Amino acid sequence: MARTLWLDDDQRLHTWDQTRLPFETVAIELADSQDCARAIVTMQVRGAPLIGAVAAYGLAFALRSDASDQGLQAAHSRLLATRPTAVNLRWALERVVRLVSSLHESDRAAAAWHEAGAICDEDVACNAAIGRHAAALLQPLVTGERALQVLTHCNAGRIATVDHGTALAPIYALHEAGVPVHVWVDETRPRNQGASLTAWELRERGVAHTVIVDNAGGLLMRQRRVDAVIVGCDRVAANGDVANKIGTYLKALAAHDNGLPFYVACPISTIDPLCAHGELIEIEERSAREVTHLLGRDEQGGLREVQVTPDHSPAANPAFDVTPARLVSALVTERGVIPARSDAIAKLLGGGAA
Amino acid sequence: MARTLWLDDDQRLHTWDQTRLPFETVAIELADSQDCARAIVTMQVRGAPLIGAVAAYGLAFALRSDASDQGLQAAHSRLLATRPTAVNLRWALERVVRLVSSLHESDRAAAAWHEAGAICDEDVACNAAIGRHAAALLQPLVTGERALQVLTHCNAGRIATVDHGTALAPIYALHEAGVPVHVWVDETRPRNQGASLTAWELRERGVAHTVIVDNAGGLLMRQRRVDAVIVGCDRVAANGDVANKIGTYLKALAAHDNGLPFYVACPISTIDPLCAHGELIEIEERSAREVTHLLGRDEQGGLREVQVTPDHSPAANPAFDVTPARLVSALVTERGVIPARSDAIAKLLGGGAA
Repeated sequence: MARTLWLDDDQRLHTWDQTRLPFETVAIELADSQDCARAIVTMQVRGAPLIGAVAAYGLAFALRSDASDQGLQAAHSRLLATRPTAVNLRWALERVVRLVSSLHESDRAAAAWHEAGAICDEDVACNAAIGRHAAALLQPLVTGERALQVLTHCNAGRIATVDHGTALAPIYALHEAGVPVHVWVDETRPRNQGASLTAWELRERGVAHTVIVDNAGGLLMRQRRVDAVIVGCDRVAANGDVANKIGTYLKALAAHDNGLPFYVACPISTIDPLCAHGELIEIEERSAREVTHLLGRDEQGGLREVQVTPDHSPAANPAFDVTPARLVSALVTERGVIPARSDAIAKLLGGGAA
Repeated sequence: MARTLWLDDDQRLHTWDQTRLPFETVAIELADSQDCARAIVTMQVRGAPLIGAVAAYGLAFALRSDASDQGLQAAHSRLLATRPTAVNLRWALERVVRLVSSLHESDRAAAAWHEAGAICDEDVACNAAIGRHAAALLQPLVTGERALQVLTHCNAGRIATVDHGTALAPIYALHEAGVPVHVWVDETRPRNQGASLTAWELRERGVAHTVIVDNAGGLLMRQRRVDAVIVGCDRVAANGDVANKIGTYLKALAAHDNGLPFYVACPISTIDPLCAHGELIEIEERSAREVTHLLGRDEQGGLREVQVTPDHSPAANPAFDVTPARLVSALVTERGVIPARSDAIAKLLGGGAA
């Protein structure tokens, strides 16, 4: 099946327009560096790994028209400015710049194009490995005739990466292996990434799922209608504290209270060894408008924004929360499963086997 | 200030049309029994205590045109059918029927009208008492210059009762006493009673508040930006387990994890001594459409429903959850504050002092 970012037979680059999901599934071509930059700015593409890959291709496109040092520097600056705080974007761009800087100008575009492809392939391989490791944790939880019941929050799926996703990678792996699996999809207010993107991509792949409001997961766990929770992460501190989409902490508390495993799909690149613990992670406060207004499809089929709060009632919108390591059953990385503990994390980052 | 259900100088009955809140504040007259029934069916009025009071007035109106036994029976059936599962509705109607059955037909309408007024007055007195008891718990939490920071879920406010509300009663009491107080208002998906009704009524009374998505409360508690949580309840079991709006349990877990008090405003009428514990409480599953679609105000100022999930993605919508007694710091009743424990509840219901 197609990746989220793919080359056709003529080596033309395509992706989904995520601003139209889940209501319209529209592929768009990214035909030059401007297209790549625009796709990132307008959020046609989102998700840290996917943004990094698109930016790398954007740099390769730019070098086709100007491969000089000035051209390289200008393209790098232009693409970096599309999402200045995205760590993966910076990392992917610097990786390509470092590689091509030492090459003859005539070789730079082709090398950059090849490197963008390598970045994609590595993301796919990383996520597939996370999927295998997490599937091995989840599969033993299947009991009797009942499908495995997994709850997830936000979207750490295929559509946020080049393929597989992180938290959803084991879901696809189990589904493709014929293991019956059903996903409880948290709506994930305020931006509804669960209700829109996670539900969309699970449906695309034929995985059974049910959308629930963020309030419902605790009850479902108490009723034993959930076997495990798995989420992605934005940043993991050296002690195993996990920063992820707002609301993750509440689901971790409920899993813990009900003796259910709470797994975090964690590419090693998201571990920040310089961040001692989660209290040091600054929580981004986003626009109140994401809380007070909401986008959906109206009766006529058009996308429309509606206001849900009274005029003049203020709103706050912290975008992430921190789940303390004590509530995390395990971190699932591409190099294996480790406990959310300083010693295990240090050992993993030190290069030893997990 | 006006009650939610009030008589003007000509003894005409009025209330707010809650279907137009929070965007339009429109008072409607309930001029006959049909108006009362329609207001309940269309949810122009909601909240168990308020529904009971409106139904009692509906019966009094009906007796003005037909005070015969058949007329009484017919009006009782008609009003009971407006919301068959509402316990308060049944209770209020039976209270009026019992009172007037033994009276001469000529006296019935006036007696019923008087009894409806008594039901209202008792609700107001009950809620005011809860407000006093809860305010005494909350006031000592004020430290330094900072306003008291209270988080609430759903709407257990003035607009759900004849006045004061239950969970919001202490907020109004403190505010009127000049104690600075700020309320974190959970949006309360899927029906958004917090974002619409709680925010509206706090704003009406000039109480500082901020709307947040249901996902945010855990983070705010970890950041010590919340001093206490207070919620209402739909039903309290004999052991102190609390059934309330879906998502309450998650906030109770977060309060407990952060050593913060979690109070339940609990009119004695909501305690069910025949229900041994919370696991026995059946959880109502409401329409999936409440999850997949959402009502808001569009750019033109009209109310409009938009779809937020993909076509064909199923949704589940459990309406309540159960918070185990161990997570409840105290039950605040009109007769005082008691621990959420079988012995204390039995003693309270037995008529002893709390």
